[in-house]
Amino acid sequence: MVQETTMLERAVGPTEKGALTHNGDKGYFFRNKTLTTSTCNPYIKTFKAMEYAARGPVILRAMQIEAELRSGVKKPFRQVIKANLGDAHAMGQKPLSFVRQVLALVACPNLLETTHYFPDDVKLKARSILDQCRGGSVGAYTDSRGLEVVRKCVADYIERRDGIPSDPENIVVTAGASEGIRSCLKLFKGVEGEEKRSGVLVPVPEYPLYSATLGEYNIAKINYYLDESDGWGLSRVELERALTEGRKVAEPRAIVVINPGNPTGQVLTRSNMEQVIRFAYDERLVILADEVYQDNVYEDAEFVSFKKVLSQMPAPFNGVELVSFYSCSKGFVCECGLRGAYFECTNMDPEVKSILLATAAAKLCPTVLGQAAVACSVDPPRPGDPSYAAFRYEKDNILNGLGERARLVTEVFNSIPLVSCSPVQGALYAFPNVQLPQSAINAAIRLGQEPDVFYALELLEETGICVVPGSGIGQKEGTFHFRTTILPETSQLVDMLDRFKIFHLNFIKKYATLET
Amino acid sequence: MVQETTMLERAVGPTEKGALTHNGDKGYFFRNKTLTTSTCNPYIKTFKAMEYAARGPVILRAMQIEAELRSGVKKPFRQVIKANLGDAHAMGQKPLSFVRQVLALVACPNLLETTHYFPDDVKLKARSILDQCRGGSVGAYTDSRGLEVVRKCVADYIERRDGIPSDPENIVVTAGASEGIRSCLKLFKGVEGEEKRSGVLVPVPEYPLYSATLGEYNIAKINYYLDESDGWGLSRVELERALTEGRKVAEPRAIVVINPGNPTGQVLTRSNMEQVIRFAYDERLVILADEVYQDNVYEDAEFVSFKKVLSQMPAPFNGVELVSFYSCSKGFVCECGLRGAYFECTNMDPEVKSILLATAAAKLCPTVLGQAAVACSVDPPRPGDPSYAAFRYEKDNILNGLGERARLVTEVFNSIPLVSCSPVQGALYAFPNVQLPQSAINAAIRLGQEPDVFYALELLEETGICVVPGSGIGQKEGTFHFRTTILPETSQLVDMLDRFKIFHLNFIKKYATLET
Repeated sequence: MVQETTMLERAVGPTEKGALTHNGDKGYFFRNKTLTTSTCNPYIKTFKAMEYAARGPVILRAMQIEAELRSGVKKPFRQVIKANLGDAHAMGQKPLSFVRQVLALVACPNLLETTHYFPDDVKLKARSILDQCRGGSVGAYTDSRGLEVVRKCVADYIERRDGIPSDPENIVVTAGASEGIRSCLKLFKGVEGEEKRSGVLVPVPEYPLYSATLGEYNIAKINYYLDESDGWGLSRVELERALTEGRKVAEPRAIVVINPGNPTGQVLTRSNMEQVIRFAYDERLVILADEVYQDNVYEDAEFVSFKKVLSQMPAPFNGVELVSFYSCSKGFVCECGLRGAYFECTNMDPEVKSILLATAAAKLCPTVLGQAAVACSVDPPRPGDPSYAAFRYEKDNILNGLGERARLVTEVFNSIPLVSCSPVQGALYAFPNVQLPQSAINAAIRLGQEPDVFYALELLEETGICVVPGSGIGQKEGTFHFRTTILPETSQLVDMLDRFKIFHLNFIKKYATLET
Repeated sequence: MVQETTMLERAVGPTEKGALTHNGDKGYFFRNKTLTTSTCNPYIKTFKAMEYAARGPVILRAMQIEAELRSGVKKPFRQVIKANLGDAHAMGQKPLSFVRQVLALVACPNLLETTHYFPDDVKLKARSILDQCRGGSVGAYTDSRGLEVVRKCVADYIERRDGIPSDPENIVVTAGASEGIRSCLKLFKGVEGEEKRSGVLVPVPEYPLYSATLGEYNIAKINYYLDESDGWGLSRVELERALTEGRKVAEPRAIVVINPGNPTGQVLTRSNMEQVIRFAYDERLVILADEVYQDNVYEDAEFVSFKKVLSQMPAPFNGVELVSFYSCSKGFVCECGLRGAYFECTNMDPEVKSILLATAAAKLCPTVLGQAAVACSVDPPRPGDPSYAAFRYEKDNILNGLGERARLVTEVFNSIPLVSCSPVQGALYAFPNVQLPQSAINAAIRLGQEPDVFYALELLEETGICVVPGSGIGQKEGTFHFRTTILPETSQLVDMLDRFKIFHLNFIKKYATLET
């Protein structure tokens, strides 16, 4: 039976197990927590990198300021503009009617019979999804890779996009691209205690999910720098340098390429991509192509998928292993909250693919409503469908607005002294370079802050504009940047850029004066 | 500029990098894949355990048989009964109208104005969620812990359930309980290469997510056996034994308790839980309470949460660290496909909590529609609300059906020779013990199969009933079990149990004859 320890034993016995604190009044001992920052998985602390971008000092201050505004505190602005996050709906973009109508029907199939609100193509799409759900319910688990009907829609989309066959068996639907990226990155973790860790090449600047995940899996992050002076392009020389550097501490196994670039907004040329593929072949690297912004391409830039470029290259380059990622959080759908995404494996070892599927099985299945969003996103209404006109209007409106704002930010930033900005050819961000006066840098250092954090905090306090400082994303030593989205509606963005310009000129003036 | 390697360099140079295969015809070399089972993260192979339960030999054969039936092959049955998975909607359970109506409205808020289909409390619930979504859209990211309105509904639910305060700040909404369990388990991973790994106590039999996740994080799984002869209860003697055994190879840091039990169906008594809490205190273990079946309790059994028992114990026991898990995939809602769940931390170190939140941030946010399902699941209509009558009818219907079937399976299994089954007091499963004739065991061994897999495959072939063999879940050496759900509708279940009985008696007879 149960053997009870006495109060005395508890008080004296377990000293070897951890520190004790005597509580004189009550006569027994409180222990320290079992789980503390010093006993907790040391690798997941790298997620602080992720938290930094999502809840760093600038964002936390922005949240405080919002609370202050609500409580009536007077500020030089009426609201905080959250230009820090690629979250279109939060910034006022309206959801596509087609997507939401399909979701309403699959969630509540009774509506198929009880209302006349829904166009026929919406009903058809909803039925095609419900037909494949067990028990006709989105509340049943699906295959852990996602419903076959969704993966088929995806494969068809890829075929239309690339003109190259795509097999639904190579497609895994995930609850957001982050989840897929994490599943793939962790494949590269080696055996603990081995002499050399695995390494993955990651661009600087990057999307911080990569550093965070590599940190968690104790995989070395090997930085390669995008060339700001060449429109944030990749150069083979820099890739070679990074690889040589990386090899000193790790065994490079994969390369991450973000195209269109986040936060940099460049769209890679075909020849640049061929270069990466040749490099990957030569150095035996798997390419992880983060192509979540593939529908966000503006002006003359053209998105070509890594799969297409690779498939059109001669052997042996067309045999390079590739995983590419898509998300309905981006594009024109921008349904961040629905968590719908997929990845496609090309040239993947079949057994590795089955391991990937087994890890997906641990999550049982991606959200079925998110899967439905993927099906709508890759297979929207076509000419002749009842919903086509509305869909086309909504989509054009979104993409034209983004294109207009991409031009606008580039122009305005480049018109401001000591600010320069590469053209925003794609994605949802601008990543302008700001030259800070030395006295501002010194002031930041005195406060123990990164100079770009210091700058972004002043920007926030004076204008309400919230951006992500470059130091949270990665930038070349000695340079300073910030990331802003191009998501605010055009009139709001014009106003925001005006306020930014005034702030910046004042900032420069103030610290230049201090310098003299 | 780019330095191109020649064909010759590529063919000869990289021999040290991996095996090459000469392709004589084409004159260049194909390499082995970069990522193969031998170079791939060795720890995630443990997910095979998970895959086993989800896609083991019995399930794979069931899928083949379904295909054969579709193609017209004659079998002694018309359809496969998938009694392997706790997936209520797949087995014909209808979703709760309230949940689905709220989902339709938050997905498509236009319906708030355009139809008269929705009761006022449904509209109110939908508006309460939409009001907190940025831009009024479920397509915007939420706080990575989940919307505040959802966490408040959860805290209210816990307060009503336990009569003890609950703070929304201690609640994290996740896309399914699996995700939350994984986030918490990984906290216990220690530094690589340290002398002793961390260990976590896990019940046998278990839900295989635990072994799979611990394997991935290279945390030792320390088995403690539930006592079948005592209705699958926990005994302190066995916990002590397991701990002593575990300490030889690992540093035990936490204990997982599944209550109500999966696959065992027991509901722990308060005194049993107090025992576990004292043990956790004495041995400095964090308690991970998998309470996802808290609404699935039948007959006289009563679910009491670990938080309630712990809070009502005297100090220092009420200071034990606890995380408890809830899921709307289970209970009476059973919305597996929506991926809505939460966990609540009690007595957690604030810094560890902030690390947990940072890891959640890497996933950006849980599906907002899944969050809405959580809000509906923990805060359904109340007496007086327009939807209450329908909700009450649907809920009672589901829970009464489950209760009836829980009694039924227990009775029938215990009426069959060489089969015994602990009462199904809770959850969605029975886990009967089957004594197999020695000649059947020998036959299995000759085929290289686990004897219970052999038995389950014969059951499947002859009756179409698909169950999970105990060897995939864990059982005491030399005993054989299978897990079946109690989800088939009562008439189907009666038929299934009839067929099972006939099969079993024939099986015993056949192999007993072989023995003589």
